Amino acid sequence: MFLSELMPLEEALNIINQEKIPYITEKIKLEQTYGRVLAQDIQALLDSPGFDRSAMDGFAIHAEDTFGFSQENPAHLKIIDRIGAGKKSKFVLKKGEAIKIATGAPIPQGANGVVMEEYTYEKGDDLEVLFSITPGENVSPAGEDFKKGDLLLEHPHQLRPQDVGIISSAGYNELKVFKKPLVGVITTGNELVMDKSKIKEAEVINSNYYTLKSLLESTKAIPLVTHARDDANQVEQQIKKFAKSCDVIITTGGTAISKGDVVVDVVEKIGEVLFHGVSIRPGKPVAFGRVDQKPVFMLSGYPVAAMVQFDILVRPYLLKMQKLAPLPPTVKRKATQKIPSKLGRTDYIRAHAGIKNVDPVLSKGSGVIRSMVQSNCYIVIDAEVEGIAAGEECEVLFFDSFVRY
Amino acid sequence: MFLSELMPLEEALNIINQEKIPYITEKIKLEQTYGRVLAQDIQALLDSPGFDRSAMDGFAIHAEDTFGFSQENPAHLKIIDRIGAGKKSKFVLKKGEAIKIATGAPIPQGANGVVMEEYTYEKGDDLEVLFSITPGENVSPAGEDFKKGDLLLEHPHQLRPQDVGIISSAGYNELKVFKKPLVGVITTGNELVMDKSKIKEAEVINSNYYTLKSLLESTKAIPLVTHARDDANQVEQQIKKFAKSCDVIITTGGTAISKGDVVVDVVEKIGEVLFHGVSIRPGKPVAFGRVDQKPVFMLSGYPVAAMVQFDILVRPYLLKMQKLAPLPPTVKRKATQKIPSKLGRTDYIRAHAGIKNVDPVLSKGSGVIRSMVQSNCYIVIDAEVEGIAAGEECEVLFFDSFVRY
Repeated sequence: MFLSELMPLEEALNIINQEKIPYITEKIKLEQTYGRVLAQDIQALLDSPGFDRSAMDGFAIHAEDTFGFSQENPAHLKIIDRIGAGKKSKFVLKKGEAIKIATGAPIPQGANGVVMEEYTYEKGDDLEVLFSITPGENVSPAGEDFKKGDLLLEHPHQLRPQDVGIISSAGYNELKVFKKPLVGVITTGNELVMDKSKIKEAEVINSNYYTLKSLLESTKAIPLVTHARDDANQVEQQIKKFAKSCDVIITTGGTAISKGDVVVDVVEKIGEVLFHGVSIRPGKPVAFGRVDQKPVFMLSGYPVAAMVQFDILVRPYLLKMQKLAPLPPTVKRKATQKIPSKLGRTDYIRAHAGIKNVDPVLSKGSGVIRSMVQSNCYIVIDAEVEGIAAGEECEVLFFDSFVRY
Repeated sequence: MFLSELMPLEEALNIINQEKIPYITEKIKLEQTYGRVLAQDIQALLDSPGFDRSAMDGFAIHAEDTFGFSQENPAHLKIIDRIGAGKKSKFVLKKGEAIKIATGAPIPQGANGVVMEEYTYEKGDDLEVLFSITPGENVSPAGEDFKKGDLLLEHPHQLRPQDVGIISSAGYNELKVFKKPLVGVITTGNELVMDKSKIKEAEVINSNYYTLKSLLESTKAIPLVTHARDDANQVEQQIKKFAKSCDVIITTGGTAISKGDVVVDVVEKIGEVLFHGVSIRPGKPVAFGRVDQKPVFMLSGYPVAAMVQFDILVRPYLLKMQKLAPLPPTVKRKATQKIPSKLGRTDYIRAHAGIKNVDPVLSKGSGVIRSMVQSNCYIVIDAEVEGIAAGEECEVLFFDSFVRY
């Protein structure tokens, strides 16, 4: 319980970073891929467009047939066919002829330009053209967007709407993407119940159930949350079960440092504990280990401590597993008041920041969820900094920057 | 088709903004509410914690019993009970007595402080206390987090993990939130097929199906995408169907301005068209109307035009319906090259911006999806600006800022 026994945050992060991540991919339907991270490169399987096509509703013609003509002296052409989108004309256009054509329809053989409908008069099969056009006018050439074989996107890349759109045009209907990790959460604590109606004696609502589920959703992981009593056997069975079925395990509660506590003891017994106790505040009693090659993050039972531990230690790991963008660097804001901090400990002060300043939220302990609710960021005070003076610049990490879509 | 006939963007946005939005709410389970927008205020239904509780594993005592004692001269107390979390002691603590207590357990009657376990020696029922404590030490008082009746959150507010956590502690297990709008999308065009294997003659892949579905997901709306041929009757039936079952309708294709085109004609016939043709580039041939009180956004068939129209006209409407944060204001970047633009028209130039500069992506037309894929922002050139000189500051709207979680 003394600072000197705790591991510096940097060392704890290094241990987690050294874990080998089994990057797991899956193939899913293209229409389900918005927001997912590509696990393959995208090379076009075809030209887009696949043929020279009309960029306008109008008439495919020989541009030369309009040279020298004008509104006062219109060209006269003969309409020999009319084609809608999706259809090809069977005719080869000769001089003096025109084929009516819809936007997106293929340019008929022989034609080299399209005159817009509003620059013409159509009377039966006679077409008056009021303006001259240049060769290639209103023609989108084959391969204008991309050509077969073009490298359109490289992995990893989180897919935006336009990416999904171009991939469909490139001929794909399913994609290899990184799997969303399935995360088994075990909240522990005999005093926890799921809602108000069930409270007896000195029981309290298991807010960690709700918080952890939401935290995991904010990283795009799939949460599977369950509860265990403070019973070594029950905790052991549940961890073993999740070690088989899940990619990552998280526990809350049972991590006190002073003495052997249920969860850490169980992981020590059936796997290994890589660290226990980190010099951060809040969140000191946190442990990390491995059971059957699956990482186990052992968080505090205290809601605020658990959230901070999640944000600092678990969140970066889950983003990395999916190759999602990592947490951004901190930004600078001016502290509106003095903030004390101990050398050798990294502090995560709940705070509310605007464009220039940041106000620490007066927190009363790691059980006070309201301090997180009133905050929009952490002030991060590194281990080698002894506190922030009023008006001094400090490092701020916005909660908004945690969210992934 | 001439600029003078087109509606200025501002006017079009005003028309959409004047639409009465039926804010629709629903009650859902608390554990499903991460990322949803509160449609009710949250007042605590109970105190949290509900009782004075121990902040540490240790012994509940009379603080006065430790005054003047130290490691050299420890106090001796008698352990009369041991209680775990979730349990209450039946005893009333008298002077000279101690009750062993777990973190989170209720402070026994009579006790006024908790001495941490590591500052004691326990031998049978005898407890040596090595340090003195002050009254209230290691006690989290009832209502420390919040008191019954406290206003914890006001609507509208998009729920973060900590919000969901505190709401659970406050005694709620379901919440009223704004409904995700159900959006019926009708892509039109005889030339469109769903994938490469189905392409015949001059058909092309219906990338708008994929793009619109993803765009809607990025606004948190629920997409219901279907396709219709360029057939007034089929389009009419589908719009009528969606007007019954959906909150918003979107169409793509059939919006040419020069002449009557299928979709706009149908909406004119069975509802009303409030505008048709807006002075933006790309995306000029866009219309907005109403059928059975449901808004109908009629977008271009061209993929890039449809995306820009969605971002500028549809996206703000869908965010507003859900009371999600609106699009942020543009930010300033220096253009790396000259960008021409016509007075009276608002241009959305696809571009790639960094921290200081922005590079326009050379776009070849509103069918070239690749220009959107290579971009991370729009340069917005207002109607009254005649173009940007190289090195000049311009207004930039990042695609990242569109995303809602």
